[in-house]
Amino acid sequence: MLSRRLMSLTPYVPGEQPRDRSYLKLNTNESPYPPSPRIEAFLRSYDISLLRLYPDPWSLSLRQTMAKKYGLTEDHIFVGNGSDEILSFVWYAFFDGQYGRLLFPQYTYSFYPVYCDYYDISYRRIPVNPDFSLNVDALIGNEGDPSCGIVFPNPNAPTGIALPLDKIRDLLERYPQDRVVVIDEAYIDFGGESAVGLISSHENLLIVRTCSKSFSLAGLRLGYAMGSPGLIRALFITKDSFNSYTVGRLTQAIGEIALEDEDWFADKIARIIEVRTFFSAALEEQNWQVLPSKANFVFARKPGETGQRVYERLKERGILVRYFNVEGIRDFVRITIGTREDMNRLLEETKSLF
Amino acid sequence: MLSRRLMSLTPYVPGEQPRDRSYLKLNTNESPYPPSPRIEAFLRSYDISLLRLYPDPWSLSLRQTMAKKYGLTEDHIFVGNGSDEILSFVWYAFFDGQYGRLLFPQYTYSFYPVYCDYYDISYRRIPVNPDFSLNVDALIGNEGDPSCGIVFPNPNAPTGIALPLDKIRDLLERYPQDRVVVIDEAYIDFGGESAVGLISSHENLLIVRTCSKSFSLAGLRLGYAMGSPGLIRALFITKDSFNSYTVGRLTQAIGEIALEDEDWFADKIARIIEVRTFFSAALEEQNWQVLPSKANFVFARKPGETGQRVYERLKERGILVRYFNVEGIRDFVRITIGTREDMNRLLEETKSLF
Repeated sequence: MLSRRLMSLTPYVPGEQPRDRSYLKLNTNESPYPPSPRIEAFLRSYDISLLRLYPDPWSLSLRQTMAKKYGLTEDHIFVGNGSDEILSFVWYAFFDGQYGRLLFPQYTYSFYPVYCDYYDISYRRIPVNPDFSLNVDALIGNEGDPSCGIVFPNPNAPTGIALPLDKIRDLLERYPQDRVVVIDEAYIDFGGESAVGLISSHENLLIVRTCSKSFSLAGLRLGYAMGSPGLIRALFITKDSFNSYTVGRLTQAIGEIALEDEDWFADKIARIIEVRTFFSAALEEQNWQVLPSKANFVFARKPGETGQRVYERLKERGILVRYFNVEGIRDFVRITIGTREDMNRLLEETKSLF
Repeated sequence: MLSRRLMSLTPYVPGEQPRDRSYLKLNTNESPYPPSPRIEAFLRSYDISLLRLYPDPWSLSLRQTMAKKYGLTEDHIFVGNGSDEILSFVWYAFFDGQYGRLLFPQYTYSFYPVYCDYYDISYRRIPVNPDFSLNVDALIGNEGDPSCGIVFPNPNAPTGIALPLDKIRDLLERYPQDRVVVIDEAYIDFGGESAVGLISSHENLLIVRTCSKSFSLAGLRLGYAMGSPGLIRALFITKDSFNSYTVGRLTQAIGEIALEDEDWFADKIARIIEVRTFFSAALEEQNWQVLPSKANFVFARKPGETGQRVYERLKERGILVRYFNVEGIRDFVRITIGTREDMNRLLEETKSLF
C-alpha cells in the first residue's frame, strides 16, 4: 500500500522528549527562559472568535514586522511552520539532483541528509578542518563535479563553531551565481555574524531562521527565511502547492509580538552568552575539550570517555544531553546552555562522575 | 536557480481573503460561530513558559482524546497542520505513479490535482452522475487501466452531495485491497455518514478530517487522519522526514479542548443544518437550482446567470461567494452557510439582483 519513495526513508530522530521522569533537559537547545511576557498579555485578551477564520496565507503583517527589523522589504521574507518546514521547501524548490549533488559539511544538522532522501537528491559531505571549522575551499566544490547547491548552519551544529562573514563573502563570490546557497542561521543570535547584509548583493543567498531558540518559542513552530524576491516567490509557490495555510493565526500574532520585544531579547541573549562563557571555562577546568561556541550549546568531550557513556551516566543523574553516533564526533556530547543554576548542577555531576 | 519540479507547478488558489473592505465572507466555508468558549478560558490561564519547549512530536495526548471520541486507539490516528498538510503527506506516502494513475471525481477539491503536480503523479478525473452524485462504478476504475489509489471528499466539494455508506462499503469491497482509498471527510459532521466504522475491516481506508469547519477553528490549523496502524505509521515516517514538529503546543492543547466540548459542537452543527435547510428552500423559492447539500455550504445556480456574474454582482454588494471557472459547473456558485441573519441578507440581495 506504500509508495516506493516512502519505503526508502529513514526519518530524522529529534532529541528525546522523555515522559518517564523529570529531567534537566539540555539536549534539544531549548531556551531556559520563558518567552516575552507580552505574549501572556496578548493571550489574556485574545478574541477567540477570530479563530473561526482562516489565517492570512501570506502572513503579511508578520512579514512586514520582520522586514522592518532586518532593514528589508516584505518581498524578501518567507515564513513557515518552523525552520524545518522551510528547509524542506528549500530542498524542493532549489535543489535538483540533475544539476549535481548537494554539498553540506561532514558534521552538520542531521536533518539535511533526511531531506535529501525525501526528495531524492544525492549529496556530498564536505570534510571540515581539523579544528572542526568549515572549510570554504572544499565547500565550494570543484568544477569537474558540479553541485546543485550548498547548505550549512552558521554557527554550525552540533559543533557551535561560527564562520566569519569574510569567509561567507568569499564563498558567495566564488560559487556559481545560479545555484542557491542556504545559510541556516538557527543559532546566529548567540554571537555569530549574520549574512543578512549580503542578500542585496547575492540573489542566490537564502538565510533561514527560527524563533525556537533565541525567542524561546520552540513550542510555537515559527521559522522564517530571508533572500531575494525571486527566491521568496519560489518558496511561496512551493508552499501554495503543498498547504496554503501553514502558519496559524495565533502563531502569526505571537511571532510578531516576540520579534518586537527587543529589550527581552537583548537581555536573554546576553544571559545565555554569559552562562556559555562561564560554563565553557568551568568544563575546561575539569579537563574537558570544549569547542569555541557561538551558539546556545557547547560541543565538548572528556578525554577517555565516549559521548554515549557521558550521555548515559548523566541521564542516570537526571540530566539529558545529546551525543551523535557518528565517526569523528563519537567522543563529544552536545550540551544546551541553560540557566547558571542548571549548568552548576551539571558541573557538579561531571566533576563527580568523570 | 530553481528546480525543474518547481517550474512545472501551478499552485492552489484559496478563496480570496480581501483586505480592501469588510465583506460578508461566504466564500471559504468558515463557521459563522466562535469556537468553544473553553478555549478562551484556556488562553486566559495558559502558562507561556511552556512555549520555550518543543511540542510532543507524536501529539500523544491529543491523539488519545481523538481515539476516545471515535472509539479507536491512538495508533489509528495521525494529526497535522491542517488537513491540507495531511493530504500532502498522503500523496507522498501512498500514491505512486508507477502503480497507475490516481482517481478522483471530475468535480472535487481543487487541491487534488495540485498535489499530483507537486509529487509528479498522473491522475484521472472520473465523471460524476448527471445529478452530480459520485459514480462508484466509474470511480473504481477498470482492470485494464490500473490506478494507484482513489481520493474523494464526502460530502463532495464543491457540490455538497454526500455518498451513502452502503456505496462506500461497495467501493471498498470491489477496489484492490493493496491500494489506498482516501475519504476526505472535511464536511462530514454536517449530515453525512462517516466511514470511520469501516476502518477495522478495511486496512486500505484512510479518513482525513479537519477542525477548520465543524469546530470553527480554521485559524488554528489542525487536521487529523484515521486509518489502520500501518497507514498511520507511514504518515509518521513521512512527517518525520519532512518536519518533526508540525503541530505546536497551543494547537495540540486547543484541539483537545475543542474536541471534548460536545455540547458546543452539537448545538453549532444543529444550527448550521437548520440554516442550510431554510436557506436552500428560500433560494429554491427564488427559482434557483440548489444541489442537495450535507455540508456547511450549498452549490447553487440561477438559470440564465453564470457563476462569475453572480459572484461579481454579490461582491459589489459586499458579499463574497465562490465560483469555479470549470467546464460543467461554471453556472454554479458555492455559498457558505452563515448565520440566519447572514443568509437573510444574501437572500435580499439575490432577490433584488437576479
